[in-house]
Amino acid sequence: MTRTRIHNFSLSLDGFATGAGQTPEAPMGHAGRRLHEWLIATRFGAPILGRQGGTAGIDDAFAQQHEPGIGVEIMGAGKFGPPGWQDDADWTGWWGPNPPFHTPVFVLTHRPRSSIEMDGGTTFHFLDAAPEEALRAAREAAGGRDVRIGGGPTVVRDFLAAGLVDHMHLVQVPIVLGRGVRVWDGLEALEEHYEIEVVAAPSGVTHLTFDRRTP
Amino acid sequence: MTRTRIHNFSLSLDGFATGAGQTPEAPMGHAGRRLHEWLIATRFGAPILGRQGGTAGIDDAFAQQHEPGIGVEIMGAGKFGPPGWQDDADWTGWWGPNPPFHTPVFVLTHRPRSSIEMDGGTTFHFLDAAPEEALRAAREAAGGRDVRIGGGPTVVRDFLAAGLVDHMHLVQVPIVLGRGVRVWDGLEALEEHYEIEVVAAPSGVTHLTFDRRTP
Repeated sequence: MTRTRIHNFSLSLDGFATGAGQTPEAPMGHAGRRLHEWLIATRFGAPILGRQGGTAGIDDAFAQQHEPGIGVEIMGAGKFGPPGWQDDADWTGWWGPNPPFHTPVFVLTHRPRSSIEMDGGTTFHFLDAAPEEALRAAREAAGGRDVRIGGGPTVVRDFLAAGLVDHMHLVQVPIVLGRGVRVWDGLEALEEHYEIEVVAAPSGVTHLTFDRRTP
Repeated sequence: MTRTRIHNFSLSLDGFATGAGQTPEAPMGHAGRRLHEWLIATRFGAPILGRQGGTAGIDDAFAQQHEPGIGVEIMGAGKFGPPGWQDDADWTGWWGPNPPFHTPVFVLTHRPRSSIEMDGGTTFHFLDAAPEEALRAAREAAGGRDVRIGGGPTVVRDFLAAGLVDHMHLVQVPIVLGRGVRVWDGLEALEEHYEIEVVAAPSGVTHLTFDRRTP
């Protein structure tokens, strides 16, 4: 049985996973890199900024779980591009010609366009669909492997609210963002469906894993 | 130099420190005991429910910090009694004839009344004052010892927003309350003023200590 998974999903103490005021220059809004400093410091994350090296401890161990066994990613329109990317026929995502997914990626948007085949195995498909329908399409494309819900926060929240997430790795960063997109709204008593484990890392962040209880 | 401290202040993943719907029967609203199970399981907290024993590990080590060096507590009206206690001339708090404070306690309320001397050294004073003024009065009564901000969440938030808190111990409980009183609103970038340390406990809660940076 394949699973639906979320990895490396960072949020502030006050539950924001993206800052306010997203622009092409500031994809995370006023949060800047603060939610992901822990990630780009790891061996897994260093290449995101073209760096070498990186830490190899607990933060990296969690970060590395992002890839293995994943056959497809579902992401929201807000992750694929800055506000208004739908008006730019040439927009192919933030990641250049060889995006770091190497699988089919389903981008949820109310204005779908034709699929885009990129280098390295990534193909972007565009879908105007509710979580259940998107997950069905994603599973068909996943070749028997797991589906990753790649964010942003609105998509994560929608899939959690629909009860479609089997495994979630959250990273709480000890900052108070004050503004942005909240994760937890509408998810009262979410914990009842999951085994939760919490561990603090020497870097200062806290890793929370939610693993769905077998009924 | 005395300090202003917060201890054992529990909140949910989504940043609520009290549930919705507080009544005399449910002082924490729909949160019930869920935010404080960690506390009543400790040696320090067991007597709150008249129990003996309790754990003696990391949760208890943090919980015990609640008392030493404290000369006075400041609490909000919402901690002293259920909504409407101001209309009950005989209300003397939740705690019976011998409250667990054993110091002067300043209750912030827009409808002050005469002070009440209880058994065991607790005297309740009632004050209609902003945080700065309340803290001045509390310090005068503290006999050179520290002032504890006892909650609830609105009072904690007001004192944090006014920059009056030197030390804060938060306990994050891995539940999503969905409703209640939020702690973090209006506290953007609070972390810049504090050294923060985070540790997860085997009980499943996470302890966060905020210690004010020396300028």
